[in-house]
Amino acid sequence: MKAEVFPDQDDLRRSMMALGKAAKSAAGILAQSSDAQRNAGLLAAAAALRARQNEILAANGADMAEAREKGLTEALLDRLELNPQRVEAMAVGLEEIAKLPDPLNRVLESTTRPNGLRIEKVSVPLGVIGIIYESRPNVTADAGALCLKAGNAAILRGGSESARSSAAILEALQNGLVAAGLPESAIQRPPTSDREAVGILLKMSDSVDVIIPRGGRGLIERVMNESRVPVLAHLDGLCHTYIHAAADLDKARAIALNAKMRRTGICGATETLLVDRAAVASHLQPVLRDLAEAGCELRGDESVRALVPDVKAATDADWDTEYLAPILSVRVVDDLVEAVAHINRHGSHHTECIVTEDAAAAQRFMAEVDAGIVLHNASTQFADGGEFGMGAEIGISTGKLHARGPVGAQQLTSTKYRVHGSGQVRP
Amino acid sequence: MKAEVFPDQDDLRRSMMALGKAAKSAAGILAQSSDAQRNAGLLAAAAALRARQNEILAANGADMAEAREKGLTEALLDRLELNPQRVEAMAVGLEEIAKLPDPLNRVLESTTRPNGLRIEKVSVPLGVIGIIYESRPNVTADAGALCLKAGNAAILRGGSESARSSAAILEALQNGLVAAGLPESAIQRPPTSDREAVGILLKMSDSVDVIIPRGGRGLIERVMNESRVPVLAHLDGLCHTYIHAAADLDKARAIALNAKMRRTGICGATETLLVDRAAVASHLQPVLRDLAEAGCELRGDESVRALVPDVKAATDADWDTEYLAPILSVRVVDDLVEAVAHINRHGSHHTECIVTEDAAAAQRFMAEVDAGIVLHNASTQFADGGEFGMGAEIGISTGKLHARGPVGAQQLTSTKYRVHGSGQVRP
Repeated sequence: MKAEVFPDQDDLRRSMMALGKAAKSAAGILAQSSDAQRNAGLLAAAAALRARQNEILAANGADMAEAREKGLTEALLDRLELNPQRVEAMAVGLEEIAKLPDPLNRVLESTTRPNGLRIEKVSVPLGVIGIIYESRPNVTADAGALCLKAGNAAILRGGSESARSSAAILEALQNGLVAAGLPESAIQRPPTSDREAVGILLKMSDSVDVIIPRGGRGLIERVMNESRVPVLAHLDGLCHTYIHAAADLDKARAIALNAKMRRTGICGATETLLVDRAAVASHLQPVLRDLAEAGCELRGDESVRALVPDVKAATDADWDTEYLAPILSVRVVDDLVEAVAHINRHGSHHTECIVTEDAAAAQRFMAEVDAGIVLHNASTQFADGGEFGMGAEIGISTGKLHARGPVGAQQLTSTKYRVHGSGQVRP
Repeated sequence: MKAEVFPDQDDLRRSMMALGKAAKSAAGILAQSSDAQRNAGLLAAAAALRARQNEILAANGADMAEAREKGLTEALLDRLELNPQRVEAMAVGLEEIAKLPDPLNRVLESTTRPNGLRIEKVSVPLGVIGIIYESRPNVTADAGALCLKAGNAAILRGGSESARSSAAILEALQNGLVAAGLPESAIQRPPTSDREAVGILLKMSDSVDVIIPRGGRGLIERVMNESRVPVLAHLDGLCHTYIHAAADLDKARAIALNAKMRRTGICGATETLLVDRAAVASHLQPVLRDLAEAGCELRGDESVRALVPDVKAATDADWDTEYLAPILSVRVVDDLVEAVAHINRHGSHHTECIVTEDAAAAQRFMAEVDAGIVLHNASTQFADGGEFGMGAEIGISTGKLHARGPVGAQQLTSTKYRVHGSGQVRP
């Protein structure tokens, strides 16, 4: 279960090339497979996760022990930890993905031209997808399963703290693939969790079609800078809730509290609260009181602290920080224009909310804010594929190309035009 | 009209940064503009092209003179040359783009969730698009207009041989923009056609949202390697026509001739003909005779030359060469499996055709060939946005992310989820 050691970079390179070649070959088989075959693989993988629960928990125990020694935060330890319920949830997740409609061979457009050519646009797999993510072992199962559902081969590189857990989960998934007659190399991981393996992966444009990085700005920037493979970026969420001058107080209180505190460790959690100057007198104190009572640490600008003195002073860095913790930065803005400018400058283009009873203000906010998801009078924590009715997701894409917002099985496809003729030539 | 000289790289960098900032600001205005406003800009630009025809032709004359001195091929000179008809065609092209339906604010999906949240997926602009293309001055008008139609700001970098022509066309477009009350910086070009300007553009991820390179493998690879901005690749077309064992002879003759010779300089022109061994005796000679009579140079493998001795010997390089000229490489393959393998190895994932009366073989070819467009019994020269009923296009995307096949105004958009609530919080 221990990661291989590659003292020689050439060995690692050769090993990665072999991995890529195997993935490409598996992708060719998956592209021609039926939905039923791939679903059988998912169900067999779910069964294998259950059958190998003890090995998975033992591997996770070793990861957790090392992570505690390293002094990881409680939030990160919680993301890393597995237990029987969480293994069962992974297995159920795979079964749910098997139930989703076939994302492939959908006829997305169809037209017959005056010359008789029948043109169909159909969904096809992307090919080989490399996914680079945090130390969250469950993502190994979810991401591998979504790639498989959409006929793609996956190369999964989770955070190094979760290496043993991910390897154990991957072994179960591969057992399932083989049991269903699918190639084991449909889901793989690099032979080592060394950073160097990621560097090589990002240059494997001959065998890898898409790289999906999930994580903070540092990871995304490294990947965008180094990758020679097209990137579908999933930046963490630096999300805002904006209480407009015309906000209903009850809605503002409920949404701000839920958006920040329901779960603080997810990407749709609000990290900064913006409040219109005109709403400060009426809204600021009750909203912040709710948050403080729920255990949230508040960091405000001078206007906030003038009214609520026990709030800590926010520094410049606070406006650019995704806490993933019960901490909220709070800023007073003059108006909608200033709110939009703040969000477009400091946000991560993920999910942004306005609370207002003024429909025109809501419309303007939703048009001018540059984000994958914009909400009016609803919690930013709804940023989730399941809540959108899409089923499981890899994450929320913050890029503008290909897919923006929740990325599920359908978003992991490409398209192809099929043109049916009867001998037509172009005049 | 002459390109500025930047002896100092820092000056060039500052100038490019200013260009990017102006483009981003223009993109913000365009994103909130109406279709009517953008169409008015297109019509005013068309009028300005006509009004400035003399300046444009004079600039093009200077480009042509220099290009002839440099010894450019006839095919490249033809791409570069403008005349009154071609200027008029550009103006008409802009008017046609103005007539296309609004690609923005389309509600692509709409759903109301059980909790009452109404979720809409709408089309929005991509933002700032950088386009790097060949020395074809007309692309300056087409690409700029398509970007504008979709609410994007454009930075256009045509080949250096067309620098004066492009500058003159751009000036006309900008006149039109200003006349219609739109920002001049909605369509711009780098201040110099130095290669260094491209290098800087590819790193301007703060202001540029997408890079679209159009051209050969060398350009695409440079861009994929250097770009820190997401890339929508338009590789030239190394397209194949495959005559299957069950091909109808008349269709095979008509399609092969048209696919190669209708126009040899376009990306959908066939460059390699594959012929099943079982069809060689019946099909090879008549098909090649037609091509030779039309003035096509033929380069064949040994099996071809055994039957048609006056065909030149193809070298390994021929299978990877996009001639864009009346030259065709011809290879005999054992069967469909070998044909698909050849295409997936040597093709550019652009447009591929099978000629056959065997529906199962056609279906298999179309499933297994990895290309944006696959055709059954129709000429590869149909690879064109207009022929697909889409109107004008930037080109044919050969990448798998975002858009594959013809890229028109609709493909130059991104999406955004708008979520309408009434105070919902997530349980």
